[in-house]
Amino acid sequence: MKDIQISIREDLKQKPDQDHLEFGQHFTDHMFLFDYNSEQGWHDPRIVPYGPIVLEPAAMVLHYGQAVFEGMKAFNTNNGNVLLFRPQKNMERLNQSNRRLEIPEIDEEFILHAIQTLINVDKEWIPSGKGTSLYIRPFIIATEPCLGVRAAHNYQLLVILSPVGAYYSEGLEPVKINVESSYSRAVRGGLGTAKAAGNYAASIKAQTEAKEAGYSQVLWLDALERKYVEEVGSMNIFFKINGTVITPELNGSILAGVTRDSIIELLTNWGITVEERRISMDEIYQAHKDHTLEEVFGTGTAAVISPVGELFWDDRQIIINDGCIGELSQQLYDTITGIQTGMVPDTLQWTVQV
Amino acid sequence: MKDIQISIREDLKQKPDQDHLEFGQHFTDHMFLFDYNSEQGWHDPRIVPYGPIVLEPAAMVLHYGQAVFEGMKAFNTNNGNVLLFRPQKNMERLNQSNRRLEIPEIDEEFILHAIQTLINVDKEWIPSGKGTSLYIRPFIIATEPCLGVRAAHNYQLLVILSPVGAYYSEGLEPVKINVESSYSRAVRGGLGTAKAAGNYAASIKAQTEAKEAGYSQVLWLDALERKYVEEVGSMNIFFKINGTVITPELNGSILAGVTRDSIIELLTNWGITVEERRISMDEIYQAHKDHTLEEVFGTGTAAVISPVGELFWDDRQIIINDGCIGELSQQLYDTITGIQTGMVPDTLQWTVQV
Repeated sequence: MKDIQISIREDLKQKPDQDHLEFGQHFTDHMFLFDYNSEQGWHDPRIVPYGPIVLEPAAMVLHYGQAVFEGMKAFNTNNGNVLLFRPQKNMERLNQSNRRLEIPEIDEEFILHAIQTLINVDKEWIPSGKGTSLYIRPFIIATEPCLGVRAAHNYQLLVILSPVGAYYSEGLEPVKINVESSYSRAVRGGLGTAKAAGNYAASIKAQTEAKEAGYSQVLWLDALERKYVEEVGSMNIFFKINGTVITPELNGSILAGVTRDSIIELLTNWGITVEERRISMDEIYQAHKDHTLEEVFGTGTAAVISPVGELFWDDRQIIINDGCIGELSQQLYDTITGIQTGMVPDTLQWTVQV
Repeated sequence: MKDIQISIREDLKQKPDQDHLEFGQHFTDHMFLFDYNSEQGWHDPRIVPYGPIVLEPAAMVLHYGQAVFEGMKAFNTNNGNVLLFRPQKNMERLNQSNRRLEIPEIDEEFILHAIQTLINVDKEWIPSGKGTSLYIRPFIIATEPCLGVRAAHNYQLLVILSPVGAYYSEGLEPVKINVESSYSRAVRGGLGTAKAAGNYAASIKAQTEAKEAGYSQVLWLDALERKYVEEVGSMNIFFKINGTVITPELNGSILAGVTRDSIIELLTNWGITVEERRISMDEIYQAHKDHTLEEVFGTGTAAVISPVGELFWDDRQIIINDGCIGELSQQLYDTITGIQTGMVPDTLQWTVQV
């Protein structure tokens, strides 16, 4: 395995107040850098003081959006260990994104090793409060300066770390979600299955309009028929109808969430039927009218589980479980966050100790 | 109008050989920068030596692709003038892109003034050979360091200049195009009408696969039914069938090209019927079988007119005009490049003197 050069900064930064950590606003003392060119491949892995990077104005990432990323978390446990949650899945997905955007693949094992090394260097930054963690952002950008539209020849992989607070400071809070009927996030044959920068640019306007109307997120429908549910903002989504849990199948425009995968495995182990299939808003509305729509929740790295209290669709208000957190949502949240922080036995061997 | 601060570099760069100018590889001595924050709005317009820019690793453009751009050209005329071609249209479209991506709008007149000032500073860089020009790349990137997915609060607008050669060094050459049936570029409700960085990232893999199969470009079909023609690579497309010229209507997923608009106006003035409407590959194939498919050409800032000699669709080869340049394609190319370089009277008042 390649050696990682480590340059420790002399003047460590002031750490932010652990009780008021806004998501993705504070960054640790160091970052990991790794360069790619056609001659040398991926080379020069190094940990350096966190600070500005220098790019040519013609760097292709700034013009043609050739950029992919991942999101992961490290947790402090009560007994002083640091745990990652299924980090191999993120490394696999990073390479899936790379292949879709024609970015050279990375050595998954080595990048995971580099992330662990970086976390060790900045381990004092991992917060310890309930619900807090160290958010890990690996990303790859095309750095070659050229205005031709094609895959770049030069790239940089970076890993930055950000201490983050509990997603819901007052415990789990159900969110109100607008079902989007004008904008699209992705379509089959597009970039929807990749964690590509451009997918998020496409979502900003719909999110803003939803927020202005009093909703915290957007539920995306399929771009073809505008009938079938795809995903919520930056989360996957699950519906509990009459005891069965249903989540949209990975149809070529949905991101394959690591939390989504974990939820399916947990529920199956618990003997609850999970269906991965197309599910239409008509079916959800009908279940609501029949009083069989029991719970709705989003899943993702940031919030883990995000209970949905209301869906607003086509001028119709769908209130779920009287706007309260469902029993299963709470149980899934407690189990996954328990495993992540070492409070619940990790029988599925999901965690990796740093 | 705001004052533009100008810092001239002391050591001017060596200019590249005008006979071997690759597209978007060489950049002039200076660039224009303009910053935005919520308090000051757009501020501090300045022309500085061309060189690397400094970004926070958490700059939102690198993670969520909030970036838009334009492409324009400046031409040297025989009598020593410098002409721009319909630059107001590019400024209008830049603001359309801004609105779609929630980037603060710019003062179109001021940015055009800034571009003209920059061109004047670097006017020695405008090449004079046949078919050459100075390519102008205005672009805006989200610079705020934050990992939350939302519209950024800080941006930078940059303009960089690149001397470019004739797109076809040996005169107009018909291209072979693969009709794409797996990948999608954009869909209604997405970013297809904006000149957004992410749209180009989505196109790279299809372009590579087409090139490997011997085709120089990809023809995108609508993502919904995979039946109707949308656009070619980074160009709009026109079909001449039985004397009538047909181009896909601006349906919400196609970019509104400035050259496209100019072609429609020219053809209409020449008394040729132009239809902006949905056109399916079935219709094109039928016209080919009926021997009424007379010409096909792409239009865009880079190539102006790009005659299509072959379309490969669903294992069927559609040869157009025996693979030769059509009469109308040539006439359009000569007229537009003539107007751009001051050789043909600009009766439509399309050019702007710098």
